[in-house]
Amino acid sequence: MERIWTTELPEHVGERVLLEGWLHRLRVLRGVSFLVLRDGKGLAQIVVQDPELRTRLEALYAESVLRVAGSAVAEPQAPGGVEVREPAVTALAPAVAPPPFDLFRPTLKAQLPTILDNAAIALRQPRWRARFRLTAASMDGFRRTLRAMSFVEIQTPKIVAAATETGANVFPVDYFGRTAYLAQSPQLYKQIMVGVYERVCEVGPVFRAEPHDTPRHLNEYVSLDAEMGFIQDHTTVMRVLTRVLAGMVETVREEAADAVALLEVALPQVPAEIPAIHFAEALDLIARATGEDVRGELDLAPAHERWLSEWALREHGSEFLFVVGFPTLKRPFYTHPDPARPTYSNSFDLLFRGLELVTGGQRLNLYADYLVALDGRGLDPAPFAWYLEAFKYGMPHHGGFALGLERWVARLIGANNVREATLFPRDVHRLAP
Amino acid sequence: MERIWTTELPEHVGERVLLEGWLHRLRVLRGVSFLVLRDGKGLAQIVVQDPELRTRLEALYAESVLRVAGSAVAEPQAPGGVEVREPAVTALAPAVAPPPFDLFRPTLKAQLPTILDNAAIALRQPRWRARFRLTAASMDGFRRTLRAMSFVEIQTPKIVAAATETGANVFPVDYFGRTAYLAQSPQLYKQIMVGVYERVCEVGPVFRAEPHDTPRHLNEYVSLDAEMGFIQDHTTVMRVLTRVLAGMVETVREEAADAVALLEVALPQVPAEIPAIHFAEALDLIARATGEDVRGELDLAPAHERWLSEWALREHGSEFLFVVGFPTLKRPFYTHPDPARPTYSNSFDLLFRGLELVTGGQRLNLYADYLVALDGRGLDPAPFAWYLEAFKYGMPHHGGFALGLERWVARLIGANNVREATLFPRDVHRLAP
Repeated sequence: MERIWTTELPEHVGERVLLEGWLHRLRVLRGVSFLVLRDGKGLAQIVVQDPELRTRLEALYAESVLRVAGSAVAEPQAPGGVEVREPAVTALAPAVAPPPFDLFRPTLKAQLPTILDNAAIALRQPRWRARFRLTAASMDGFRRTLRAMSFVEIQTPKIVAAATETGANVFPVDYFGRTAYLAQSPQLYKQIMVGVYERVCEVGPVFRAEPHDTPRHLNEYVSLDAEMGFIQDHTTVMRVLTRVLAGMVETVREEAADAVALLEVALPQVPAEIPAIHFAEALDLIARATGEDVRGELDLAPAHERWLSEWALREHGSEFLFVVGFPTLKRPFYTHPDPARPTYSNSFDLLFRGLELVTGGQRLNLYADYLVALDGRGLDPAPFAWYLEAFKYGMPHHGGFALGLERWVARLIGANNVREATLFPRDVHRLAP
Repeated sequence: MERIWTTELPEHVGERVLLEGWLHRLRVLRGVSFLVLRDGKGLAQIVVQDPELRTRLEALYAESVLRVAGSAVAEPQAPGGVEVREPAVTALAPAVAPPPFDLFRPTLKAQLPTILDNAAIALRQPRWRARFRLTAASMDGFRRTLRAMSFVEIQTPKIVAAATETGANVFPVDYFGRTAYLAQSPQLYKQIMVGVYERVCEVGPVFRAEPHDTPRHLNEYVSLDAEMGFIQDHTTVMRVLTRVLAGMVETVREEAADAVALLEVALPQVPAEIPAIHFAEALDLIARATGEDVRGELDLAPAHERWLSEWALREHGSEFLFVVGFPTLKRPFYTHPDPARPTYSNSFDLLFRGLELVTGGQRLNLYADYLVALDGRGLDPAPFAWYLEAFKYGMPHHGGFALGLERWVARLIGANNVREATLFPRDVHRLAP
């Protein structure tokens, strides 16, 4: 008999079935006991009436691995409308101790650090693991949407010779006795690749040695990157990003339907045109509404991002908001200035449910402009020679964006801490598991 | 007028079209000149008859970025059967120097180190860039095939607290004053995740601080990893791998058809059942055929892998060969021994066209077995506590494999050096670009 998934039980009513999975819960009642078996996809209720079997199951710790053969019977009271009766149960791999948490409870009864310390077991909890099905579907939606727009997926190196963007906040690596660094982003590589394919994307780890310990930051996270050539300006990138977000939501809806239902995720509506506000106008709005003296600021504080998000929802009915035209000086050297007002840039952030989710914009594309930009920031062009070559030999108008995967999933599930949307988070204090 | 790709020209014969791309080549003949424009997908031939335009184009270096408006005309002599006539050409971003190589030649006239040093420009060469379309399609085929078999894609951390597998050959990272390491593989994490989803896969960078400088090794490469639970033994994994390889070949054939044609790639036939030979039998065969005294060996030398590959092609008509049952002592501590002959293991390598492409096998799944295995190798279990937790609380029979992406593409294109199938390779001597 071939093993089936618990989620396939409804298609096998009236048949003998074979299930395999973990002892999720044993509920011993007066006359009958219920064994709940968890496999990689779902749960199955198994009715235990045989006292010998009940005794055998009572002797097993939760999480023991079991094989169950039995009859699938329609039972409206059972979860999923089917239960398994007359079971024969084999213990394939008994747990050797009781798990540190009850995985059958709707939430894990422990503090976040304890949960993360015990990720190997905590991640098995059905609601916890459902989060990372959203992650998997989001990655697929990102790639799928971009592939349909002729983007080519690339993999660029994570060990680099020099700090990529700012020169600060990089992790040093001992590379055969030389000092190398972990890439802060694939930015410079994806720009080079615009010269090759015009449109490229990458899903991969990025590393930020920021010593801040906040609920919004990780020191290693997954960045969804895209970059494209022959754009008008940053607004072309914003339109592509809008399609990508819609594709991600659609793919999550299709591929992670069970997780969306279990977690009661309210998937966002992605407007055909996401509202946009200029950075200067945004500060003005905040100053007028709150009385705060923010007009000289060069960046948005987290509280201002939240305020603007609420404003966009109120005024435009949108959970997404583009803030465009961040001050050129606050953005990296490759940022393209706004030709009409060069102290502002052709860049954007995308806010989603109160948090900066995406950063992007148009990049400089002329070699001479790069030399000026590096000089203006006191950066030596020599270590960038391998990168500047791309601009020396003809590079079109181009731009792109980077979306933080864990932040996206955290916003979907309404988690305040991005660690709750990360399998094995890395922060200043956490290097394991 | 909306810009079209050069590859779309045949659908626009008789129309005015707008193209954008790079000045790939200018061929000045007596009466007429030909401008070859390259965009992200292909090439277009543009007929230049206007002497003023010819003079203007002659003043531009190759790789200058151009916009070309003209009429698409059927012309059997032209590449693709269409050429563009009566062009109006705008230089969008002139190159500021002549490129270090002629990109229009079928091969780059330079040594590999020079090509790699100038990757920003070398990667634009049509045959060179075609390779990485095979890479992109291979990644998609890997994920697509596994997703259809209910594998969940994960992303695991690349900065880890302790050496993952062997304790050797890891790159140290300065992590806020502590020493951390770059992950040699996602092995321990993907095993933990079997306890969560049963079936997981990951595409990501792995880091090996091996000081060897060979044509087969990179110090950072992309590993295609899968791991699954509730297997019979390693043969279940081998069957899944066989389906994955077939899916990868099929996806390359569909999604990278132009690259396959341009590079004249002979895609392999993946047999329904890939031939398999036991390690001991393989050594015996080599000893008998070559007279070499290899019977006591614990691993296969590269020359023996080549010999076995040729043997499999000759005897079984297969470009793939499984070698199973490597000596347990030569495999990592989590390797499951062959219950019938415990000095041999339930592990395998897959050879493809003379090279080890995949390594995999069944893993230990019982907590007690892990303690014995670690002890047997003199390894302290304490640093592995976060990992061993997965086995303490019930883990089914499981196994998986890891496929080296660059090796796969190198074999497809017949490159002897894996660097020729890597966008920006990292080796003992190379950290840039």
